[in-house]
Amino acid sequence: MIVRRSSNPIRVGTVTIGGDAPIVVQSMTKTDTRNIPATAAQIEELTDCGCEIVRLAVPDMEAAQAISAIKQNISIPIIADIHFDYRLAIAALKAGADGLRLNPGNIRDPEQITKIVRVAKERQAPIRIGINAGSLPPASKPYPSIAEHMVCTALEQIHLLESLDFDLIKISLKAFDVPTTIEAYRAIASKILYPLHLGITEAGLPKAGIVRSAVGIGILLHEGIGNTIRVSLSAHPCEEVKTAYEILKCLDLRQHGPTLISCPSCGRAEVDIISLAESVDRYLREISKPIKVAVMGCIVNGPGEAKDADVGIACGKGKGAIFKKGKVVRTVTEKDFLNALMAKVKNVLNKQVRVPQQSKSY
Amino acid sequence: MIVRRSSNPIRVGTVTIGGDAPIVVQSMTKTDTRNIPATAAQIEELTDCGCEIVRLAVPDMEAAQAISAIKQNISIPIIADIHFDYRLAIAALKAGADGLRLNPGNIRDPEQITKIVRVAKERQAPIRIGINAGSLPPASKPYPSIAEHMVCTALEQIHLLESLDFDLIKISLKAFDVPTTIEAYRAIASKILYPLHLGITEAGLPKAGIVRSAVGIGILLHEGIGNTIRVSLSAHPCEEVKTAYEILKCLDLRQHGPTLISCPSCGRAEVDIISLAESVDRYLREISKPIKVAVMGCIVNGPGEAKDADVGIACGKGKGAIFKKGKVVRTVTEKDFLNALMAKVKNVLNKQVRVPQQSKSY
Repeated sequence: MIVRRSSNPIRVGTVTIGGDAPIVVQSMTKTDTRNIPATAAQIEELTDCGCEIVRLAVPDMEAAQAISAIKQNISIPIIADIHFDYRLAIAALKAGADGLRLNPGNIRDPEQITKIVRVAKERQAPIRIGINAGSLPPASKPYPSIAEHMVCTALEQIHLLESLDFDLIKISLKAFDVPTTIEAYRAIASKILYPLHLGITEAGLPKAGIVRSAVGIGILLHEGIGNTIRVSLSAHPCEEVKTAYEILKCLDLRQHGPTLISCPSCGRAEVDIISLAESVDRYLREISKPIKVAVMGCIVNGPGEAKDADVGIACGKGKGAIFKKGKVVRTVTEKDFLNALMAKVKNVLNKQVRVPQQSKSY
Repeated sequence: MIVRRSSNPIRVGTVTIGGDAPIVVQSMTKTDTRNIPATAAQIEELTDCGCEIVRLAVPDMEAAQAISAIKQNISIPIIADIHFDYRLAIAALKAGADGLRLNPGNIRDPEQITKIVRVAKERQAPIRIGINAGSLPPASKPYPSIAEHMVCTALEQIHLLESLDFDLIKISLKAFDVPTTIEAYRAIASKILYPLHLGITEAGLPKAGIVRSAVGIGILLHEGIGNTIRVSLSAHPCEEVKTAYEILKCLDLRQHGPTLISCPSCGRAEVDIISLAESVDRYLREISKPIKVAVMGCIVNGPGEAKDADVGIACGKGKGAIFKKGKVVRTVTEKDFLNALMAKVKNVLNKQVRVPQQSKSY
């Protein structure tokens, strides 16, 4: 059981981050923000695959102003990603952004930050202090590690915002280096009560970037640290959202659609388990309810090894056993493996009593 | 810095597991073991992609005897995976297997185990006690958790082997459920000094299986637990090996070929960063030396954000900056992005002083 770190909840539009809220899944659009239809379409795709908050780059005034039209076509909160120019932050808020991400490495003037905070406060829009190991402000003193420099930069910015009587704050401390990221989040976790946004920056292409994000974010979540996550991948942003849910699912922190248990196959298997698992996976993508389905290559110990699964198949030469919670319910011939398994999956899903999603989210 | 758990080293053929040895990467063939050419060819592929020990399923006597011919065509140690029939273990050892994996869930008779141990001892071949949450022996008493049942089963088997004066032991405690796996390995880590083989069983297809393995194995490795790892994926076994190295690399536990740092792209990017990163990745696959290469979408803060990289490119509209360790060394136009970056990568690699691989493995 993961004991989650205490944090004060904040609201980003309609979504709560921190406190006892489920860990929120975020992503970021990769379209030109000024291209309103393309950006709105990508946000719709992201929403469909489970993204709960979306961040948009705001490189200029036209992008800031586009937020107003984009918001009319979407249903999830928007966070404006601001660098260098504080006026873009103010324009984004005025255009309806539900929150901001500021990088203390490139907007440093306290007067400029004061101006941003004034508008954020009026609109009750939270600010993420988004520290990035690669774009820290110059060190005012020598730090024993990059992680400490990151944490001190965040604390300085927190103090500035608090001095302006602003506490709608969220913190991130991202690095490409996983041990640095872990060190930084662990250090800040015990010092503040603000919610934490987790991520590994510039993690790369799938699959290396998936591994890097899963290891870094997974270690922190398992320690109870983290209130919202964004997986950064050089890929379509829906890949980021899917990876985020896989991380949360395997730590029992969220439910999200079906889970496929499948054996890696070995010299013991007498059918092509990998192809069968791939076919089952394609069918499962159409299902949104949580269900555990197993595809196993041993008829002898398959049902036992996957007794955790709601439904499964254990395949032998020419015939297979369909099982439910480890108990064999039917024997089928090879040509019926896929259809019989999917029929049983549908049957189990139809029998499931509906329970409210929110209460099942942990 | 990860402080690794103390463990007594054992040898599997020419490979050391435990003690101060680098964490060893394993996989398992998915061919029919009795098909000697196919199995030897897959082991060669695995060796080429970095697999250091390979496990083979031994479902019958023909498979056990095939080990002898397979070994003549390969260069890494073989572990025979034995279930149900103790005679297969003895036959596999006599055919030249460098080690065994036994599952106490399906070979339970102490007399049979004694017979296996006698042959293993003669040949100094280690035995992995391979506990699997789904195929545990019946519980002799009620256990508060599956993890405790797994740990107690392992300890009983360890005591049996020790009573036979055999200590070439390695332990695994695999489950599909990540929290159960972590609980089991943590519990046993402080109780014994034998090396631990980590894995998440039946983790599924890439990418869900990659996430599940990275989270589970990553959390344990970061705590210093684990001496050898096997990622189980319903995919070609080289995918397992690549994933294993990505996990080890991102925790600085092993070096293995190049590392690509690439930004996820966003509305700020003015070129197609994802395609460029994919092209760079294809080139990097031909390189075996460790080098960090960055592909960044911001010309303004790209070099800084990726200053960790040995070589990188920060791309703007129509032109990009090639940088080395965060310092811009050359500006290039868009058509030369890929060639200029790869030329600089080769240039840096040629200048690198060769250092012995073994000492760089941590």
